[in-house]
Amino acid sequence: MKQHNFIAAPHTPFLENGEVNLSEIANLYAFLKRNGIKGVFVNGSTSEGYQMTTEERMKTAKAWDAAVDPDFQLFIFVGHLSTKEACNLAAHANGLKNVKAVSATGPFYQRPGSLELLVDICQTIAAAAPDKGFYYYHIPVLTNINFSMTDFLKAAAPRIPNLKGVKYTHTDMQDYITATASPFPVMAGVDEIALASMQLGADWFIGSTYNFMLPLYIQMGKCLEAGDIEGALNLQRKSIEIIGILAKNGYMPAAKFVMSHLGVNVGIARHPFKNLTDEQKAGILKDLTAAGFFEYANK
Amino acid sequence: MKQHNFIAAPHTPFLENGEVNLSEIANLYAFLKRNGIKGVFVNGSTSEGYQMTTEERMKTAKAWDAAVDPDFQLFIFVGHLSTKEACNLAAHANGLKNVKAVSATGPFYQRPGSLELLVDICQTIAAAAPDKGFYYYHIPVLTNINFSMTDFLKAAAPRIPNLKGVKYTHTDMQDYITATASPFPVMAGVDEIALASMQLGADWFIGSTYNFMLPLYIQMGKCLEAGDIEGALNLQRKSIEIIGILAKNGYMPAAKFVMSHLGVNVGIARHPFKNLTDEQKAGILKDLTAAGFFEYANK
Amino acid sequence: MKQHNFIAAPHTPFLENGEVNLSEIANLYAFLKRNGIKGVFVNGSTSEGYQMTTEERMKTAKAWDAAVDPDFQLFIFVGHLSTKEACNLAAHANGLKNVKAVSATGPFYQRPGSLELLVDICQTIAAAAPDKGFYYYHIPVLTNINFSMTDFLKAAAPRIPNLKGVKYTHTDMQDYITATASPFPVMAGVDEIALASMQLGADWFIGSTYNFMLPLYIQMGKCLEAGDIEGALNLQRKSIEIIGILAKNGYMPAAKFVMSHLGVNVGIARHPFKNLTDEQKAGILKDLTAAGFFEYANK
Amino acid sequence: MKQHNFIAAPHTPFLENGEVNLSEIANLYAFLKRNGIKGVFVNGSTSEGYQMTTEERMKTAKAWDAAVDPDFQLFIFVGHLSTKEACNLAAHANGLKNVKAVSATGPFYQRPGSLELLVDICQTIAAAAPDKGFYYYHIPVLTNINFSMTDFLKAAAPRIPNLKGVKYTHTDMQDYITATASPFPVMAGVDEIALASMQLGADWFIGSTYNFMLPLYIQMGKCLEAGDIEGALNLQRKSIEIIGILAKNGYMPAAKFVMSHLGVNVGIARHPFKNLTDEQKAGILKDLTAAGFFEYANK
Repeated sequence: MKQHNFIAAPHTPFLENGEVNLSEIANLYAFLKRNGIKGVFVNGSTSEGYQMTTEERMKTAKAWDAAVDPDFQLFIFVGHLSTKEACNLAAHANGLKNVKAVSATGPFYQRPGSLELLVDICQTIAAAAPDKGFYYYHIPVLTNINFSMTDFLKAAAPRIPNLKGVKYTHTDMQDYITATASPFPVMAGVDEIALASMQLGADWFIGSTYNFMLPLYIQMGKCLEAGDIEGALNLQRKSIEIIGILAKNGYMPAAKFVMSHLGVNVGIARHPFKNLTDEQKAGILKDLTAAGFFEYANK
Repeated sequence: MKQHNFIAAPHTPFLENGEVNLSEIANLYAFLKRNGIKGVFVNGSTSEGYQMTTEERMKTAKAWDAAVDPDFQLFIFVGHLSTKEACNLAAHANGLKNVKAVSATGPFYQRPGSLELLVDICQTIAAAAPDKGFYYYHIPVLTNINFSMTDFLKAAAPRIPNLKGVKYTHTDMQDYITATASPFPVMAGVDEIALASMQLGADWFIGSTYNFMLPLYIQMGKCLEAGDIEGALNLQRKSIEIIGILAKNGYMPAAKFVMSHLGVNVGIARHPFKNLTDEQKAGILKDLTAAGFFEYANK
Repeated sequence: MKQHNFIAAPHTPFLENGEVNLSEIANLYAFLKRNGIKGVFVNGSTSEGYQMTTEERMKTAKAWDAAVDPDFQLFIFVGHLSTKEACNLAAHANGLKNVKAVSATGPFYQRPGSLELLVDICQTIAAAAPDKGFYYYHIPVLTNINFSMTDFLKAAAPRIPNLKGVKYTHTDMQDYITATASPFPVMAGVDEIALASMQLGADWFIGSTYNFMLPLYIQMGKCLEAGDIEGALNLQRKSIEIIGILAKNGYMPAAKFVMSHLGVNVGIARHPFKNLTDEQKAGILKDLTAAGFFEYANK
Repeated sequence: MKQHNFIAAPHTPFLENGEVNLSEIANLYAFLKRNGIKGVFVNGSTSEGYQMTTEERMKTAKAWDAAVDPDFQLFIFVGHLSTKEACNLAAHANGLKNVKAVSATGPFYQRPGSLELLVDICQTIAAAAPDKGFYYYHIPVLTNINFSMTDFLKAAAPRIPNLKGVKYTHTDMQDYITATASPFPVMAGVDEIALASMQLGADWFIGSTYNFMLPLYIQMGKCLEAGDIEGALNLQRKSIEIIGILAKNGYMPAAKFVMSHLGVNVGIARHPFKNLTDEQKAGILKDLTAAGFFEYANK
């Protein structure tokens, strides 16, 4: 069985007034590293990257670059509705020494009308970070850009010299099965179905719940190795149950609250999220305890 | 590893003038049985059941009942926009000796606005075939009825005494993973991702491609048993490729053509499908040959 | 200004046990006629036609045929997922003396993949009622069949000799504006925006709220004639408000309850609708009274 | 009849290398003003505002502010996925002397889960431009944020002191009819159905086709005044036909080409749009000529 490498999509720490709190990144990095995380995908969805200004995104990327060890997989999300601004972000990341790759979605206000146009855009952005790898970030549930990644990898490979793969945050298992025939990694990006990807041979996983319950997924892999499918299924069901508890009042602020409870003060969530009341926080802790969450929690 | 049981969704044989051709059913049954099929799901989507009149559906159910051996898994689809007509179809199937279960979708013109209403409707239909099992047919891509099957099984179990499970023709792996925690079988119903279900422990599979390429899926199971995930993946990719060839000019008429080519004259497809030109048929045969289809075809 | 002709989509009277109650149709007809209704669209959405068996639909059509005066616009909806059954229904309607036209949607389980296939299907059904007119019933919100009616009318005109027009139950004003350039009537089918159609020159209106509040729409037309756009707008807003009151607990059972309250006992609604509690009924009456509904109600 | 005021959504002039070409704005302003345009909505969809960097958007706003006369309706779009950046853009616009109002969509990557959250966000942005009016920009076809504007105006009025109205770029005539009961202007934003809004009493219109064929819409208003509905309908159908010609190879680059042909060099379109070949441009001119476009074109 392949090794399973987990990349966290880290929360951006914000202060109570909503400002970026770069001073907490070292603590967050230490926490993730200590728990076995192999890398981070900075400024993406879980980081509330699209809710940050260009300047904030650059500062945050720089802070992560300063915080991590050289062998850590540091990915910077540089997607933007403006391809020009995406290129600015990519060029900035290109100048950071520990960054391994950049990643982008396509623009999703007016959207590329063909796969060819999407590849054009990715080529432009990837060329702005020529010393780093490039991963396309496929997340149609948020972008409504939904081309087959099987087709994308075929079309992009000859045109993007630094193409490294796809962050596949989608549930289309048919496309996933055919896309993984390509030589490029197709990183599993939906934690709720990590098991299905694991069984189909995935070795790279990116997600937000690895921030706070990686042991659950590591144990899942061990079950599979031991041929215990039912045990693995029960762990995946547990992960789904826990995510359900967090999602009840809004996943993002709840996940940030859990991180803070575990000792990393990532603070509040920004617009368009609604932060939790104290009563909601108490309810979440109660439900998580009842579900046995702390047995699987990062320490 | 569990045994894999394959149920075919058989084509209804039609004459060139579009009339039902019951005389071909014995031949179709012999063909499926000879190739290892354990049962049939009659009058469903692949059977063009919704395109048939109530009278035709009853005659077809009766012909299958007369054709099969007593240990064969004979399921009759009885769904209808009119719950009253669905009950008529269920009552008819209840009177057939070899039928093991009936199955229905909910009504999907005006649709049930809550899970409770869907369960009400299923309870009504299941009660009209009290001597048979009942499977809910979950196929949101065609019905736009999309409740969680995890929730459905919990809500229906205490209310439908003859509930046997769900035919799960959907790609929501998260719901599939939690629904399979129930004691009821959740039959895998999307052939393109049969591998994912197989790895998650499925033992029952229903689909249309088992009609003509069951050996591919049997071999897939053997790969898994041998720990050869890449081999299993390549077989699933081959099945997707073959389905793609058939879908190019409309899957239904192409699949019926393939069946006829393999020796079972299931004839044309009805409205709203468009039948193939001779040129299209020749193109399909050429493409199937190039893809190596006949290596995996039922004999 | 053109004359405004209103066609009601009548409820099918059901008994408390859910059986069709044909004996109430004469009373319903008298009520509609007395209030100025020019015709009825029988067995369609408001009639719960798709929830009825073929036999029930034929009996109901026959009862309406017997009830109405020869100059009344009697339309019979004959759409069915099975084109063959739709033809049976069309042929039956063709034998009824007072029927002016039949109407059908396309089949919407597996759906026609092109406009040409939809026209094929309509041609087949229309040919089964050659002595009556044919109206295509465009209601994409329920069928998910959404071709441009501008294109449909162009393609169907040369192929369907008895084509009479379209029942346009959709909110796409752009397509409506171009479709109405055709010589065929495009009947306005969304009561909530009847005013917009009226201003764009519509002379035929089909809907369910004409059953119980036709005076509101007649007064709307008079406002327009007098150049009082604000008055017309306020009446449309009132109609929207009243529909909102009915929709709160499910429009269909609420509308049937209102009809019964006004003296026509159309009884309960069938699956998939949920009938009202006595408390809900009392709440509706209270809200309707507060909204001034009875000022506009049919008598 | 009310006066009809037309606001253009102006193209941002780009050079062949994709850079903003501020020097053309004076010419564009003179062209629009000469043709009777009352204002411009800068940096919105037609301006490719979301495809521009923050810096470019500020420079463009400033250039427009310098170009226009004090009585011209200058609106600046300040929406951004990052509410913080939207506030930066709003604060910048607040410092420009001729700006009358700012406008924003909600953020549409992760989207506000309730109307209350959308109002929160708008309140935050509007507060950053306290000396200007605020219009919410409702364009669900691009943002997938689809709350009722009737409800929005009710909820926002007491919370946003500088609320001025809504730019309504949507086809939901029911919501439009009820929203227009509010004291705030609901600006008609879909040129293809401008006639429907006009008849429902709209006096403010915002759109992209007023850039190049305002005379058509002015004539439409005159037809209505004269009671010539058929004439007005034919003009709206002509506008739809012309838009269809432009949309065939991508509306944005085609519309920019038409502007350049009319004497305002707005240049190419940015990603994700595909620019036209010379052959496509020639085809468009031929089709526009055949459709009689130049009879209605701005001079």
